Amino acid sequence: MRNFSFHNPTKIHFGEGQIAKLGKEIPPGSRVLVTHGGGSIFQNGVWAQVEAALAGFAVSRFAGIEANPQFDTLVRAVEQAKREQCDFILAIGGGSVIDGSKFIAAALCYAGDPLDLLTGTRIKAAVPLACVLTLAATGSESNPHGVVTHVARQEKLPFSSALLYPRFAILDPRTTFSLPARQIGNGVVDAFVHTIEQYLTYPADAPLQDRYAEGLLQTLIEEGPKALADPEDYAVRANLMWCATQALNGLLGCGVPQDWATHMIGHELTALYHLDHAQTLAVVLPALLAERRAAKRAKLLQYAERVWHLRDGDEDARIDAAIAATQGFFSRMGVPTTLSEHGLDAEVIPQVLAQLQRHQMTSLGEGRDIDLEVSERILLRAL
Amino acid sequence: MRNFSFHNPTKIHFGEGQIAKLGKEIPPGSRVLVTHGGGSIFQNGVWAQVEAALAGFAVSRFAGIEANPQFDTLVRAVEQAKREQCDFILAIGGGSVIDGSKFIAAALCYAGDPLDLLTGTRIKAAVPLACVLTLAATGSESNPHGVVTHVARQEKLPFSSALLYPRFAILDPRTTFSLPARQIGNGVVDAFVHTIEQYLTYPADAPLQDRYAEGLLQTLIEEGPKALADPEDYAVRANLMWCATQALNGLLGCGVPQDWATHMIGHELTALYHLDHAQTLAVVLPALLAERRAAKRAKLLQYAERVWHLRDGDEDARIDAAIAATQGFFSRMGVPTTLSEHGLDAEVIPQVLAQLQRHQMTSLGEGRDIDLEVSERILLRAL
Repeated sequence: MRNFSFHNPTKIHFGEGQIAKLGKEIPPGSRVLVTHGGGSIFQNGVWAQVEAALAGFAVSRFAGIEANPQFDTLVRAVEQAKREQCDFILAIGGGSVIDGSKFIAAALCYAGDPLDLLTGTRIKAAVPLACVLTLAATGSESNPHGVVTHVARQEKLPFSSALLYPRFAILDPRTTFSLPARQIGNGVVDAFVHTIEQYLTYPADAPLQDRYAEGLLQTLIEEGPKALADPEDYAVRANLMWCATQALNGLLGCGVPQDWATHMIGHELTALYHLDHAQTLAVVLPALLAERRAAKRAKLLQYAERVWHLRDGDEDARIDAAIAATQGFFSRMGVPTTLSEHGLDAEVIPQVLAQLQRHQMTSLGEGRDIDLEVSERILLRAL
Repeated sequence: MRNFSFHNPTKIHFGEGQIAKLGKEIPPGSRVLVTHGGGSIFQNGVWAQVEAALAGFAVSRFAGIEANPQFDTLVRAVEQAKREQCDFILAIGGGSVIDGSKFIAAALCYAGDPLDLLTGTRIKAAVPLACVLTLAATGSESNPHGVVTHVARQEKLPFSSALLYPRFAILDPRTTFSLPARQIGNGVVDAFVHTIEQYLTYPADAPLQDRYAEGLLQTLIEEGPKALADPEDYAVRANLMWCATQALNGLLGCGVPQDWATHMIGHELTALYHLDHAQTLAVVLPALLAERRAAKRAKLLQYAERVWHLRDGDEDARIDAAIAATQGFFSRMGVPTTLSEHGLDAEVIPQVLAQLQRHQMTSLGEGRDIDLEVSERILLRAL
């Protein structure tokens, strides 16, 4: 096992009715900026619960944080928060709203151009934030990371700071009952690939981390299709929500090598062609596993056996079967696994490679050996 | 899944050489009370590393916190800390030193008789504490619990407060190389039973928590004997250390029923007959599983299959085999599984039952239905 440090200070309140705890968790006297996406929180009863819990606080509401939250939108939220002198941010939504709110929290404490915070300037302060999660997917509810899209630059810009862990996160599985199937499928694929990025590399003598990851993957495989079949099965939604949080709260990655090349290539596909984040992952991951089968051989065999229970055939046949099973699972979740299903062909490859080069993404993966040539082969396999 | 709240704010620094981070983690200007057990930290190099890392801090050292830390000893430490005006506590050791130091931290902020804090008075303040772990077992390094022994009362008194999470914990597996085999065996059994207490109850539709627990148990079964065979295998010691921390940091118990009857009965055996904590668990657990096989049937079958890979024979045969395998594992770790191996016979049973009654431990277990009669049958099976 490698040396590591782990510190996740986010407090979780999990279960039905937990939104009522908001009022006790936010410091008395706070002026709260509530951020959210569209109007769904008014239809699914979430806003009514939040509003009741926030009685007694000064509240300013900012609507319209979109999927892949945009820099320009967030700057408007920062202006509103300054005008209203907000000193606490409550994000209601999924990863996009929470990521965007993390950026707002940091930008509120930064005197210069907020774009600096996405292009290398270290975040040195942030307004405290918390969240009410309404979509199980990204893990942003208990991690320090965010990604913001800059439309004019066609870029997805990641940022991270320990100051951006939500102070608390409320996870009520009922808030996800009314989500469209596409978002459920995307969420399950997102959590699955987050787990794979921290697991499917090479053996590092960390059997507990391996088993945690395998347990997560198996649970997503079991519960994911059930969530599509019955949108109001509380137990299923609860299990998916806890899986998604666990998949990217830092625990799985303790002491082990990590990959993240699928995410880096996927980010460019979203920035250029506006695919959903999880759609890019479902396209890139199977292609990457096939391309990297030599470097990942030992873990691919372990994955085949422990996650998919594949024990027949020789080693290469089992690896092939595991990759096919992964694709089959993404398909069952309604998420396509080829670029062509999104109407994209080989012409996009030079553009993606140019973006990777521009962003210095030329030595990706756990071995830092996925250069542009390897990325090209991955994209060719993903057609 | 049940509703739950989870918040573990302890920062972990894991791996060789991490003791050097002490100096940066303790607030500058702190007056540090260093607590430890016997003299082993001077022989195994731990004290030299701590001393170097604490250069620049005012340090007062308190030695002699024993296994099952005693109230009278800890009161002396409190007096020393007051005299030296210490405002930070650094525990170096295993669960006993850390548990004792948690009590010291609370007692330093309490104006009344410190015994109150063990008999029901709520802990309302505590001096910040941190630890350097040198024995993988109890999980005290990242949880809010402690147990203190009051010799005159023949009692083990548990206490708990969110104020008592260590601010940080340094886990260097090398510090465990020089431990005697008995402490390694005890530590593995302790972590194993902590996991079982949160897992082997009844199904609660929480498949991820189940798999985390099963992953922990399997890893302990694999790595435990290796630790006895080769005391200087770093990877093995690292895995056991991470397992022990994970087994009782609150994560496994999220949203699921918990038992803890084995611990409650075991505490009385330690208080009365001075068995090691883990020795009591190894004696009580197999007897409890046999006695409770009806209530725990579904999970016993799952445990048999997933942890011990027992698939032959009818259901009762598989349950018998799983309990026997558990006993066999404890024996391989050098920890006896019957009272008679500790020189105790049926005469002790009335005394243990009287203690349980005195401590209002008359409705134990996940169903609160282990009354004194059931405890008696468990103890009879444990002979």
